[in-house]
Amino acid sequence: MSIIVLGTVALDSVKTPFGRRTELLGGSAAHFSMAARLFTRVNLIAIVGSDFPKKHMAFLRDKGLNLSSLSVDKGKTFRWEGQYEGDLNSALTLNTQLGVLSVFKPEVSEAQRKIEYIFLANVDPDIQEHLLTRMHSPKLIGLDSMNYWINTKRKALIKLLKHIDIYVANDQEARALSGESNLIKAAKALCAMGSRMVLIKKGEHGVLFYNKKFIFSLPAYPVEKVIDPTGAGDTFAGGFMGYLTQAGKVDAAAIKKALAYGTVAASFNVEDFGLSRTSKLRRADLERRLSQFKKCFSF
Amino acid sequence: MSIIVLGTVALDSVKTPFGRRTELLGGSAAHFSMAARLFTRVNLIAIVGSDFPKKHMAFLRDKGLNLSSLSVDKGKTFRWEGQYEGDLNSALTLNTQLGVLSVFKPEVSEAQRKIEYIFLANVDPDIQEHLLTRMHSPKLIGLDSMNYWINTKRKALIKLLKHIDIYVANDQEARALSGESNLIKAAKALCAMGSRMVLIKKGEHGVLFYNKKFIFSLPAYPVEKVIDPTGAGDTFAGGFMGYLTQAGKVDAAAIKKALAYGTVAASFNVEDFGLSRTSKLRRADLERRLSQFKKCFSF
Repeated sequence: MSIIVLGTVALDSVKTPFGRRTELLGGSAAHFSMAARLFTRVNLIAIVGSDFPKKHMAFLRDKGLNLSSLSVDKGKTFRWEGQYEGDLNSALTLNTQLGVLSVFKPEVSEAQRKIEYIFLANVDPDIQEHLLTRMHSPKLIGLDSMNYWINTKRKALIKLLKHIDIYVANDQEARALSGESNLIKAAKALCAMGSRMVLIKKGEHGVLFYNKKFIFSLPAYPVEKVIDPTGAGDTFAGGFMGYLTQAGKVDAAAIKKALAYGTVAASFNVEDFGLSRTSKLRRADLERRLSQFKKCFSF
Repeated sequence: MSIIVLGTVALDSVKTPFGRRTELLGGSAAHFSMAARLFTRVNLIAIVGSDFPKKHMAFLRDKGLNLSSLSVDKGKTFRWEGQYEGDLNSALTLNTQLGVLSVFKPEVSEAQRKIEYIFLANVDPDIQEHLLTRMHSPKLIGLDSMNYWINTKRKALIKLLKHIDIYVANDQEARALSGESNLIKAAKALCAMGSRMVLIKKGEHGVLFYNKKFIFSLPAYPVEKVIDPTGAGDTFAGGFMGYLTQAGKVDAAAIKKALAYGTVAASFNVEDFGLSRTSKLRRADLERRLSQFKKCFSF
């Protein structure tokens, strides 16, 4: 089993109460991959500019990712600059430079088109749809987006919902797209709009999963020192989708376990800047924390 | 085993997106008792005015509470008026009339002084301390407070922390009293200030429990239609302390189960106005929902 992730590979500059870092390797697909690679072979579909540092390319390859569909185009790599304050629960975007992302048209090889597990991480919904039309036999399609697209490409996003299995959103996004403030109502509404399943990430408050048959809810893994939450949601999705890909099935038991893997993967991500912590992770680290996590709530 | 709860018995007027109710029976001790009575004999220590409706007194007696130390004094019963909007996560207090609460000096019978399980629900810290000095042999003392006392009687409250076992707070209160925005750091700080254990209620986001040996975290029970959250925190405390009283021990396993009982008790409370839902509860209702709740996260 392997998985395809479409998303961004970016150069992130971030300031948190614990320091400032510039031009870190980041982006939704990069964060996703660091967690998903612990479960399955990851095919990364993204674009970078000709300024993308060679060391970053080598780094991604060293992590075992299939980079055959990572395009390098003339122009600049996508850059994001943000800042966190107080309890680090929400990012303030200071600057975004799309660069080559504005001309991105993802291509996949014939072999990759047969991959059944697909995650459309946060990029323009039109780009997400384009990739989806290229895939031969999807078995599980996850989709993430962001408030920017909810506001500017709402119709395209809602159209996409009808073709996917699981919509992954944070609480603000779920409320904005559904128009419901209660998160269970929001999840129901999003299912009614087309997604078979809805996964709402609530940051330090954990996660809510909904489909027509059941609701699951997990607390977050308790992290005392949150250094940099950038990419935590993508890392969650990577652990979640990665485990389901490895499991090869999407029943209630697999979903619960996938949610727990996503939770512990994300808890590592926030403990250091960028990919510093997750890129060093081994599966055994996840397993160890998973068993600690279980002790936090099982009775 | 029996428990003492000190707190308010009030007449609440409340407006939520689902309607408006006036002069409902409420107050911290009343909400606490509705849950705690399902586990143990509850001794209610509070004060009401001569205007307190006889039907409310009969109602409390019918619920099996020991009212021998419920004082009736000349003057008016404590009244609270509040409003909830949007996601109903925080109350806006419109009016508070202390009435007889301003002259409350709780008295307990000689028999009640021997009770080992004690909950000091939200009232003036000086009143809480007064009751505590009357008790002969406390085994487990819980304490709740509110931002008003944190701001106006901080010293008295901090002094009390050194004499109690478990400080029960919502997230805002925990942050305000500790000065820490991360809730785990806040819980640690509150333990350092004197409380042996800290229980932080996060409303729709569940609960965090901390002591020097372990951290527990539970999501909330997913409630789609929150009608009136007034008293949810007190109901939580009632289920939590009630179970521990019945268990007669305070080890890790008992605490986890108590947190789960508190969670499901609170989930019933928010489903209707005032005590409407919790006053009709039977232990079997709690057990049924507890088993549904477990399915939401156990894997």
